[in-house]
Amino acid sequence: MPIASVIIPAAGLGRRFAAEAGASGAEAAPTKVFAMLGGRPILARTVGRFLPIANVGEVVVAAPPGRADEAREACGVAGADAARLVVVEGGPERPESVARALEASDASTELVAIHDAVRPLIRGALIEEAFRTAVEHGAAVVGRPVDHTIKRIEGGTRVAQTVPRADLWLAQTPQVFRREIILQAYARRDQLVGYITDDAQLVEALGHPVVMVRGDAANFKVTTPEDLRLCEALLAAGWPFET
Amino acid sequence: MPIASVIIPAAGLGRRFAAEAGASGAEAAPTKVFAMLGGRPILARTVGRFLPIANVGEVVVAAPPGRADEAREACGVAGADAARLVVVEGGPERPESVARALEASDASTELVAIHDAVRPLIRGALIEEAFRTAVEHGAAVVGRPVDHTIKRIEGGTRVAQTVPRADLWLAQTPQVFRREIILQAYARRDQLVGYITDDAQLVEALGHPVVMVRGDAANFKVTTPEDLRLCEALLAAGWPFET
Repeated sequence: MPIASVIIPAAGLGRRFAAEAGASGAEAAPTKVFAMLGGRPILARTVGRFLPIANVGEVVVAAPPGRADEAREACGVAGADAARLVVVEGGPERPESVARALEASDASTELVAIHDAVRPLIRGALIEEAFRTAVEHGAAVVGRPVDHTIKRIEGGTRVAQTVPRADLWLAQTPQVFRREIILQAYARRDQLVGYITDDAQLVEALGHPVVMVRGDAANFKVTTPEDLRLCEALLAAGWPFET
Repeated sequence: MPIASVIIPAAGLGRRFAAEAGASGAEAAPTKVFAMLGGRPILARTVGRFLPIANVGEVVVAAPPGRADEAREACGVAGADAARLVVVEGGPERPESVARALEASDASTELVAIHDAVRPLIRGALIEEAFRTAVEHGAAVVGRPVDHTIKRIEGGTRVAQTVPRADLWLAQTPQVFRREIILQAYARRDQLVGYITDDAQLVEALGHPVVMVRGDAANFKVTTPEDLRLCEALLAAGWPFET
């Protein structure tokens, strides 16, 4: 199996998270990736899902601007693993953070995986399945078939249409690419900014095939303090139930 | 506030749930609504979210065919509440079950709420907000703005398109309607069967306004044994954190 660089954009401020944590009367809300999850920062939890995987060559974290040292410390990675953790300063927007991390990554790795800092419950076996799929097809996206009814809304909350859902999937991360493909996609990103919501979309725009890998419901994005409590409950229950 | 009849279609066999529970080596998998969740059947948990609400006049459960007595017993409702629990036999498909429950419901209630049997973590305050919205607009659907990227797939797993997601919401339940509106919608359901995925869609087809109410991530549908473990973890953590 080829070696992967794992990019974790973690420069976002988590404004919604902070607003809701503040509104609920909590202490001064931290930047979301530094919020504690079962005694460790979310970022440390997420980084810690990747480092034990043998064919992860390095994890490159894009930290909030001016806070690279703090991010490295928050990760709490010591010993031999410390050499596999690279921390760079991210930019004001996610694509800029990913671009800087790409630039800082080891150019000799064949795969690049990009994973949201705030999906701390990703399973190791799923990461490896995404790696294998990217090797085979060039680009792999972890996600879930849509099993909800989806409504299109007008004017805030009024339903305009029920969207046909057969063949719709929700994209999660990791999104894994052969290095030359994601480099080519990011080289063109300025032409596409504004409507892009995930990295795979840049690759789709190039016309490269992208293949879905079925993920877990528990691989959700921590957006609110309530989501964080959900994560804590899952960790307390022993998720991800793998050795 | 007007009084509501709450309809809980619970006749589904949960084939996917049974298959995965069986595959994981568990004992003979029960019908999903009878699976235990923190010591009580899922169905009892769900019914128990509605009965404490003052303006719930009755809860009408559509049980699996031939299993009405078993369903009533599973609900474990005693004392004064027992008179507010109605159990009917459901049909082979969900719309038929809802139609039978509608027919059995108290014609004098002004609101009808329809709620999936396998969303046991619905919050009481959210139910009441949906009631108020239905009083005001005629039809209310609890849901969540889509904060995922959505992919349209071809041929199984290949991405064909990233779907623009602004203005998309995921529909959950309860879906709450003024009685005359849902009766009118169900009277026409035979013309629409096959493409309908939720009750609100029948109302949309009539041209009636339907309004979204923002719900919780924890109000998910239990589809797999893994979802059930997630529910158990949340209950153990004290969800829904309301008195």
